[in-house]
Amino acid sequence: MQTTLSSATRTVIIGDDQPTRLIGERINPTGRKKLTAALLAGDLDMIRQEAVEQVGAGADILDVNVGAAGVNEEKLLPQVLQMVMETVDVPLSIDTANPAALKAALEVYRGKALVNSVNGEERSMQAVLPLVAQYEARVIALTMDEQGIPADPARRLAVARKIVERAESLGISRDRILIDCLAMAVGTDSRAGWITLEAIRLVKAELGVNLTLGVSNVSFGLPDREAINRTFLPMVIAAGVNCPIVNVARVRDVILAADVLAGRDEFAMNYIRYFRAQQKANA
Amino acid sequence: MQTTLSSATRTVIIGDDQPTRLIGERINPTGRKKLTAALLAGDLDMIRQEAVEQVGAGADILDVNVGAAGVNEEKLLPQVLQMVMETVDVPLSIDTANPAALKAALEVYRGKALVNSVNGEERSMQAVLPLVAQYEARVIALTMDEQGIPADPARRLAVARKIVERAESLGISRDRILIDCLAMAVGTDSRAGWITLEAIRLVKAELGVNLTLGVSNVSFGLPDREAINRTFLPMVIAAGVNCPIVNVARVRDVILAADVLAGRDEFAMNYIRYFRAQQKANA
Repeated sequence: MQTTLSSATRTVIIGDDQPTRLIGERINPTGRKKLTAALLAGDLDMIRQEAVEQVGAGADILDVNVGAAGVNEEKLLPQVLQMVMETVDVPLSIDTANPAALKAALEVYRGKALVNSVNGEERSMQAVLPLVAQYEARVIALTMDEQGIPADPARRLAVARKIVERAESLGISRDRILIDCLAMAVGTDSRAGWITLEAIRLVKAELGVNLTLGVSNVSFGLPDREAINRTFLPMVIAAGVNCPIVNVARVRDVILAADVLAGRDEFAMNYIRYFRAQQKANA
Repeated sequence: MQTTLSSATRTVIIGDDQPTRLIGERINPTGRKKLTAALLAGDLDMIRQEAVEQVGAGADILDVNVGAAGVNEEKLLPQVLQMVMETVDVPLSIDTANPAALKAALEVYRGKALVNSVNGEERSMQAVLPLVAQYEARVIALTMDEQGIPADPARRLAVARKIVERAESLGISRDRILIDCLAMAVGTDSRAGWITLEAIRLVKAELGVNLTLGVSNVSFGLPDREAINRTFLPMVIAAGVNCPIVNVARVRDVILAADVLAGRDEFAMNYIRYFRAQQKANA
């Protein structure tokens, strides 16, 4: 199954026969005081810089989130999208919990956007899916609903199936949906990583869809979080994730190695090219 | 399923509910001129040092291989085993292609040894399995036979099944068998990593046995081999390998992170203990 996203000038294809595609997570004020302050002051320079740096580091898609206390998302999100579209040419993921801001953002977006996100709650599906249908967008679907995030992988699959069926009933084919099986903190629940891996395998086997995953949360509360995140990525890629949301500069090397091992990099050409570029940069 | 190995004083349990157990690969002259020269001169100091270092780095089991041109394995292998048993207390893996040397080594070993290895060739099964039965040993079974190493994961499963059934007919229960699905070089065949991963999943699902894997070969011919090996390990652990053969000092950290993520390290205690020890060592 292939999922295509596009900007005005560029198309990205997500699929099991493609290299792993990376959604850059850095345009997001959550937990970042400086970025939040800049946003509130209407200063978009930091975001412009994040956009350039992430694409330079190898991001295929950029997530754009401006949600912070005091921000008028409905006004700011389209502005920021506009600016990012003028700065880089990769497709964008519109990341907001505010349906009015989502609609305003989709209105200015040029290409086939990724909407981040819908979940299995009736309220969420009713607010988000009609917009996805109307704007011919693609959408990230989180495996949670009114009962929360299931601890049972089979229940996460059930939520994924519910969202896929609802989307299809609105004319959104399943190739336009990226399922996110949700990574919870392993420091809090030792079974959390395994549950996510098992849910990914089930969703891939039963629904055949493409999958994203916000990876960073898995290491919350542990020392050397980067080591945990970098180790989880090969595991989730082998299980079926083909478009994770990551801090690209920190994980690109391990993604390229994983692609070689998953048979998604013929003759290891991407891996070797990256290795040579790093050698040159360090020479 | 649990596989138990033992030395005179220590037992190691291999199982999916256990931390990943590591077989140290460094007592092996293949491709190491200095070690080969020392062996030929009857000088065992380097091997003694390798044994101490690997156990210090976290090896649960040590592989012992003295096979090199000019070496009388039948005489040297029992001597080296004897010395290693006097030096460290972990269980040992007896690694030889010579049945007479294997018998001589099993004769001096104290505990339940691991025999490395049998494969699906009639000749190999006939030479090795009776010794495994006689000495109550455990055995690594390679998924290859007279036709070579199958490119089809289902055929690797078929070879594994053949060896397991033959072993059972000789009274060797399947908990005494570690299947090695064989990692070939991804630099030569882009599908090699995927084939191994798929074979591991099949063998785990269909036979329920424990699995080892010689990992290093997968990166042959590529730049930064360690990056490839370190990325492959989380993938194969998530797929079902629970006792890989590795250069322990180079991969211990990534194994500990993978165990946290695979739900094999309650409260991340092993991971955090290692992290603190490293901090202390670097302080």
